[in-house]
Amino acid sequence: MTIKVFGHKSPDTDATFSPIVWAWYLKEVKGIDAVPVLLGEPNTEAAFLLKHWGFERPAIIAALSEGEKVVIVDTNNPAELPEGIDKAEIVQIIDHHKLVGGLETKGPIEITIRPLACTATVIYDLMGEDVVALPKAIKGAMLSCILSDTLEFRSPTTTEHDRAVAEKLAGEIGVTIPELAAAMFEAKSDVSAFSDAALLRMDSKEYNVDGTELRVSVLETTAPKLILDRKASLMGTMPDVAKEDGADQVLLFVVDILNEEATLLVPNDLVKKIAEASFGCKVEGDTVVLPGVMSRKKQIIPALKV
Amino acid sequence: MTIKVFGHKSPDTDATFSPIVWAWYLKEVKGIDAVPVLLGEPNTEAAFLLKHWGFERPAIIAALSEGEKVVIVDTNNPAELPEGIDKAEIVQIIDHHKLVGGLETKGPIEITIRPLACTATVIYDLMGEDVVALPKAIKGAMLSCILSDTLEFRSPTTTEHDRAVAEKLAGEIGVTIPELAAAMFEAKSDVSAFSDAALLRMDSKEYNVDGTELRVSVLETTAPKLILDRKASLMGTMPDVAKEDGADQVLLFVVDILNEEATLLVPNDLVKKIAEASFGCKVEGDTVVLPGVMSRKKQIIPALKV
Repeated sequence: MTIKVFGHKSPDTDATFSPIVWAWYLKEVKGIDAVPVLLGEPNTEAAFLLKHWGFERPAIIAALSEGEKVVIVDTNNPAELPEGIDKAEIVQIIDHHKLVGGLETKGPIEITIRPLACTATVIYDLMGEDVVALPKAIKGAMLSCILSDTLEFRSPTTTEHDRAVAEKLAGEIGVTIPELAAAMFEAKSDVSAFSDAALLRMDSKEYNVDGTELRVSVLETTAPKLILDRKASLMGTMPDVAKEDGADQVLLFVVDILNEEATLLVPNDLVKKIAEASFGCKVEGDTVVLPGVMSRKKQIIPALKV
Repeated sequence: MTIKVFGHKSPDTDATFSPIVWAWYLKEVKGIDAVPVLLGEPNTEAAFLLKHWGFERPAIIAALSEGEKVVIVDTNNPAELPEGIDKAEIVQIIDHHKLVGGLETKGPIEITIRPLACTATVIYDLMGEDVVALPKAIKGAMLSCILSDTLEFRSPTTTEHDRAVAEKLAGEIGVTIPELAAAMFEAKSDVSAFSDAALLRMDSKEYNVDGTELRVSVLETTAPKLILDRKASLMGTMPDVAKEDGADQVLLFVVDILNEEATLLVPNDLVKKIAEASFGCKVEGDTVVLPGVMSRKKQIIPALKV
C-alpha cells in the first residue's frame, strides 16, 4: 500500500517540501512505496519554490480512509491533520514542534521530534550518510525549508545546526543564500491575489489561552505595507473568520522579515488587553509594533495571556 | 539543575538500566548534569543485575516538583509516570512503545521512539559513534536490557537490529549470552518472597478495553510451577487488587520463557469470556494455556476483547 506523506493544513514551505523530500527518500532510497500529498493549497512562497525546483504540485487531499498508511511531518497536532487520521495507520512522525498530546498510535512506530528550526533539518539528519547522493532539487528543497522557517537565520528558532545544514546544502548545489531567500520572501510577500479571509487563514493556528480560543495568524513579509494598507478591511473580516472557525478572536501578526519586528492589529479592547498583558507594551490606536518578535513558536505563543 | 532520568513505575530491567545508562551518557560523555532515579523497587531480575554489573540502586522517587528537568525513557504513558509530571520540564523522551497520547510539552523537545524490542537498543543507536568507548558495565547493562525485553530473542517483539546490537555488545565484553540470560531468568523466577498482591502488580499495566478497565499482569518465568502452585490464593487476591487500583479485573498471564507459552488464570466467567473472545481458545477449568504467547505488547493487548 502506498504511504501518504503529509504536513499540516495551510501548507507553508516546510509543510509542502518536507513531504516531497521524505516521500522521495522513502521511495528512491529505501524502496518503500510513498507519495507526498498536501492538505491545502500551498502558500505563495511554496508555490514559487515548486516551480523553482521543478516539482509538480502534490495532490491535495481532505480526508483519509480506514487503514491508510501515513507519515506525518512538521506537526503532531490532531487539529492540523485531515479527517480520518484516527482511522489511518500512522507509521512515522517527524516534527520539530512541542508535543501536543492528542495523537495515539495502534502500535510502536518511528517518532523523531527535535528542537530544531525546521523539519527538513530533522529529515536531513535522519538520512545519515545518504545525504551525499541526493539530487540537486531535493537538496534545494531542504535548503528552502530551512531558509523559510528561520527567515534566513533571523528567527530566534534558528539553531547552529540548522544554519550549518543550510550552508552545506547551498555550497553543494551552488546556491547563494541571500539571493534564494530574497526571491522566496518576495514570492511570500505577494499577497495581492488573496481575499482578507484567505490572508487571515494563510498561516494560522488555533490555541486555547486561559479559556479563550485564539486563531493566531502570522504573515511573514518583506513588504508589510501591502498588508497594513488593508488593515481596516482585514479587521472588518476578523469577526466573520473567527465565527466560521469557532474561535473567539483572530490575532494577526504581520512580521517584517527585514526589520525584524511584528505589527499586531488591534481591532478591539480584548486584543488591546491581550497585547498589553502578553508583550508588556502600551497600545495606542489600532496597531502595535513589537520589536524583535518574529516567531509564533518561541515568542508569541509562550507569551500569550488573556 | 540536575536532570532526573527515569522509566516507568514497577521498574523491570529496561526501566531500571536505561535510566542508568542514559544518565551516565549525558553526564560522562555530554557533560550534562544528570542522575538516574527509579519510580519503585526494581524487580528481582533488575536487582540481580544491579549487583552483577556493580551499580548502586538508584534513589526511588514518588513525585516531582515544579520546573524539575526530567528525561523519560521506556514509556510515554502519563499513567506510568510520577505525580507532578505535568509541572516538570520534560527535556527528552526515548521509548519503544506506542504513542499513548496523554503527554504534552511546553516547547519542542527531543523525542525518539522506535519500534524496537528494547529502549536500550534505541539508546545504543542515539549514542552513535560514542558506543565504542563505553565501559564494560554500561555495555553489560544495555545487553541485559535487550535479553530481558526479548526474552533472549524468543519474544515476537525481537527485531534483527536488537539481536545484532546484543550480540555485538556480548562479543565486546566477552559475555556468553545463554549464560547471562539463564542467570537473569533464574533471578526473575525467584518470586517466593513476594505476596500475592505484589506478584499481581509486579509487571502490570492498565488498559481500558471496550469500557472495561483491565490490569494486565505478566509474570515471565522459567519456573511457572512456582507461580501456578499459588493459583488459588492469587485468584483470591485479584478482587482486592482490582478494587484498590480502580480496575474491573486483573488478568494474570504466566509466561513460560523456555516453553514459549502463557498460562492465563481464569477466576470467573468474565475472564473466561475475555479469553475465549480474545484468543479463540476454549476454556475448561480455571486456567488456559496459550501456545506461543509471550508479549503483552504484540500479542496480548492487541488481541484483547471484552
